[in-house]
Formats: sequence, C-alpha cells, structure tokens
Amino acid sequence: MPGLIECVPNFSEGRRAEVVEEIVRAVGQIEGVTVLDHTSDETHNRSVVTFAGSAEPVVRAATAAVGRALELIDMEQHQGAHPRIGAVDVIPFVPLGSTRIEECVDLARRFGEQIAMRFDLPVYLYGEAALRPDRRRLADVRRGQYETIREEIGTNPMRAPDYGPARMHPRGGAVAVGARKPLIAFNINLRTDDLATAIKIANTIRESSGGMPAVQAMGVLLENPGMRPMAQVSTNLVDWQRTGIAAVVREVRRLAHDAGTEIDHCELIGLAPTGALLEVAADVLGLADFTADQALELRLARER
Amino acid sequence: MPGLIECVPNFSEGRRAEVVEEIVRAVGQIEGVTVLDHTSDETHNRSVVTFAGSAEPVVRAATAAVGRALELIDMEQHQGAHPRIGAVDVIPFVPLGSTRIEECVDLARRFGEQIAMRFDLPVYLYGEAALRPDRRRLADVRRGQYETIREEIGTNPMRAPDYGPARMHPRGGAVAVGARKPLIAFNINLRTDDLATAIKIANTIRESSGGMPAVQAMGVLLENPGMRPMAQVSTNLVDWQRTGIAAVVREVRRLAHDAGTEIDHCELIGLAPTGALLEVAADVLGLADFTADQALELRLARER
Repeated sequence: MPGLIECVPNFSEGRRAEVVEEIVRAVGQIEGVTVLDHTSDETHNRSVVTFAGSAEPVVRAATAAVGRALELIDMEQHQGAHPRIGAVDVIPFVPLGSTRIEECVDLARRFGEQIAMRFDLPVYLYGEAALRPDRRRLADVRRGQYETIREEIGTNPMRAPDYGPARMHPRGGAVAVGARKPLIAFNINLRTDDLATAIKIANTIRESSGGMPAVQAMGVLLENPGMRPMAQVSTNLVDWQRTGIAAVVREVRRLAHDAGTEIDHCELIGLAPTGALLEVAADVLGLADFTADQALELRLARER
Repeated sequence: MPGLIECVPNFSEGRRAEVVEEIVRAVGQIEGVTVLDHTSDETHNRSVVTFAGSAEPVVRAATAAVGRALELIDMEQHQGAHPRIGAVDVIPFVPLGSTRIEECVDLARRFGEQIAMRFDLPVYLYGEAALRPDRRRLADVRRGQYETIREEIGTNPMRAPDYGPARMHPRGGAVAVGARKPLIAFNINLRTDDLATAIKIANTIRESSGGMPAVQAMGVLLENPGMRPMAQVSTNLVDWQRTGIAAVVREVRRLAHDAGTEIDHCELIGLAPTGALLEVAADVLGLADFTADQALELRLARER
C-alpha cells in the first residue's frame, strides 16, 4: 500500500440522510477508494465521512464529494450547534501506513488550489498544510464561523483565503483544507467512581497542562443504566509516534496506583493505525528488534 | 486481501546459490506473488522460500518452482543432514489474513493432483490436507527418507502416493504437499543462566507433555561471546488462535516467578500473522470489544 492516505471531510448536513448518502455514493464510486465509515449528528447538523486510498483516487473522491455537497447543501439555510464555515467545512488528509505527513501537506495544497479554481470556492489551509502560522489551528481559521467570515473575507486581510476568491461561494461558503497525523481516540476506564481522580490524572498527562507531548485528555464519569458509575480518562493521541498508547497506559497506571485505584480496561474508539497497536505488543513483550515488517499481512500490503 | 495464502516450499539444495536464485526468480516472476524471504542451510543442503499472494498466482508460482527444481536438482546426487524425500521436499500452503484453513486444504489437494500429472511426480498429501490419518504428520510421510521410499513406493501399499506414479521421479524423487496454519517462532529469554529452569518451564507449557494446546517448546541456553549466558524458552505456536502469544507469556511469567526468576525480553523470529500481534495489544490493554478491523491498514487491505 504505497502512499496510502486517509481523508476525513466534514459536511454541514446531519439531518437529511439522503443528502449524506448522495455524498457517500459520490466518494464510493471512485475506483481505488474505500469508504471506511460515515456518521451523522443531528444536533450538530453535521456529518463525517472517512475514506482512504492512494493519492490520486483520494483527490478524485474528495473533489466529487465537494461537488455534490455544493449542489446539495445551502449554507444560507444551515443551522447547527457545531462551528462551521462552509457546506464542506473541513477536509483533512491523513498519512497511513508508511506515507509521510509531508506527502499529505503537498496533497492538501494542490487539492486546495484545484477546488478553489474549479468551484470558485475560497480555501483556507490549516494544520500542517497551513501557509501562515496563525492558521495552523483549525479553531483559529473557523473563528466567528460562516456568518463572520462572510462579512470579513473581502475586507479584512487577516481573513483573505489562501486560494480562490475573496468572497464566499453563494451556497457553499468556504472550506478549510489541511493535513494532520492520524488521531487515536483511546479511553482508560478506572476501577473507581471518583470523577476527581480521572480529572486529576487527565490534567497530569495532557500536553496543555505540561504533561505528555501530543496527548489531549479529560476526565469523565461514565454512567450507564444498570452499571455502577466508572471514572474514565478519555484521551486523543494526536501523534502516536511521539507518545504512543503504551506510554500513556503506563503513566495512567502509575498515577491510578498513586491515587489508590487501578485501570479496569481500555477502549479504542473507531480505527487506529496498525503500527500504533503493534507498538503496544512490542512494548509489553519487550520484543528485541521488532519492526512492523514482521507483521505478515502488513508487510505484504506494503509491497503490493 | 481476500484469499491471501502463503506458500513455504523447501528444496533439497542449500549449497549452490545460483540454483536457489533461479528457483526464487521463477517464483518472483509470477505477477501477484510477493517473495517474502528465502534462506539456505549448507549443512542441511536445503533451502526454504516464502512467498504469498492469492490462490491462483500462488499455485502458478509453486508450479514454476517445482518445474525449475526438477530441472536443476538431482536427488541421486543429493546429500544433507535434514530428512528429505525429493528435490522439492515439502510444499505447505498457509492461510493468511481472513483466509480459512479449508481453502488451503482444497488448494493443496488440487495443486498436488496437478503437479503429479504435469511432472509425472509422486505426491503425498500431509498435514490438514492429508487423505489418510497416518499421513497427517510430516515425519511419518518422510520416514526412511528418499532412499527408503525409492525402494518401497512400488511394492508397499502403505507407501503408495496419493497422486502420481508409484515410482520415484528419476531426478526429483517425491514431494509432500500439505496445508497448515501459520507458525509463530517466539522465544522468551529469562533473567537467569540456569538452563534447568528453562527446560522445566518448556516441559510444563508444551502440549506434548500435557501443557498448552498447539504449543511446542524447549529450553535452551544462549551463549554469545561477551554476554552472560541466558536461559531461553524457545517456542513454536502452531495455532495461535488456540493458544496465542499473550497466553504463553502470561504462563511463562508465572512459572518463572515460581522459579525465582523473571522474563527479561522476548524475540519474534521472522514473520507472524498481524492478528496474533494485535491480540497481544488487545490483551494487555484489556480492550473491550476490540476487533482486528479496528486496525486501519489491515481493514483497508482486507477490503481492497
């Protein structure tokens, strides 16, 4: 699987299932692309589609998805709880397998330029693909949302798009196109119902409080009917090659022990890079000289 | 990767590198086949080639390899320390990914029949593909080796081949064709130089002494210049879905602790099924509801 890339566009439509299905169909029709997942949220009025393939088919599928979304979604009519700037709100490209982030940065920029021209659509580059440091964070690009950017895009140089016209697309608004590393959503459930313990551990491990690099974390209390409440450290690992699952679990185990409790079990939400899971196995086994090339099917997939 | 199959033929030539290279080249020329490895042993005068692909290309590559070996190797001239019955001594087919062993059994039988006819070569089916219970074990098929089978093949009904003529191929002898599950060669190094401890643990865990199913094990003492000797429990896991790496490590850890020592580190020799490694990660994390489908690249490989 040389050059395998994941694309996770977010659309400002989460209520009309037939619209989402049309977009998913446009993606799935491209040969060489696999649709991995799609989810819709009615409150946010927003959907996320996950697909993957090599660069060329992924770009073709993303372009087809933008085209359909611009036909089917009208931002002038859109309401929803989640911040958004356009019909296709954000399009991140994510490196899988042995693909490097730099390839996704190049791809995001080329793709951004292409769709700006083709659809007369303003494009902001964000994340690793950002051309300006103040656009690395998606929240900064999206500040004030659709309604504010509509006012300022033509007059405030700080809001000028990286590609495309300095005015909103009449129905589709604008889009943020970027590159980021794969994100692992990983939760650690503790054998306690003490929310304060989970919050304290989360605060200790997360990067923003001076903890482990590339780790986001928060403490939550899981309350399910018929089960006793359970405190959870809910994490996002945004660069598993800097801080991996094994390191996070080891640190949480230590902190839980200090707090007089222990880990009950963990949960992996959705998909994770295979390498991040193999690293856990290699770590626990203390495997000497292990490489992901020793995993048969992965090695084969890479060489085909 | 639907229907992914590994093939690991053993050839009775380990000294003439150019012969081995010719055979490897014959395999590698088949489109859709990936050569994963080949190794030669001079003492045994024997080589092992590992390749994989879907059923049709794998059969084509195995057929090409048999053809070249029959041209290049003459059993009447062969000498070596390892038991053998022919120029291509043994051809196992191994299920990878989501392939079932039954598919490999069918394939081995079809392939055995084909090469018997095409090359006028006696074929014995062994392992899961055996048609007679006394031929499940390769050692039983190979008993007395080339020289004995040459004498008995035409006269002793117990030695009659499953396919092909009841006489040896003039240069190539006979071949054992079979199906087996993937084998994991996995070693656990102990923090002791006491060989007796490793032997005792190996005897406790191995199936043949009433231990864990599908586990072969022996105790050895690793002696490398400049390092202190280290006792090792060397294992083969012949059906990791019955007894996996995590279960073996847990049991060895317990037994080592009882013997007053502990595990230093582990070694994975060569390739292992990705699923067997993911199982270790899921086990140590106590992952709720984990499936191998959550490993991104694997999921993609499966769907392509």
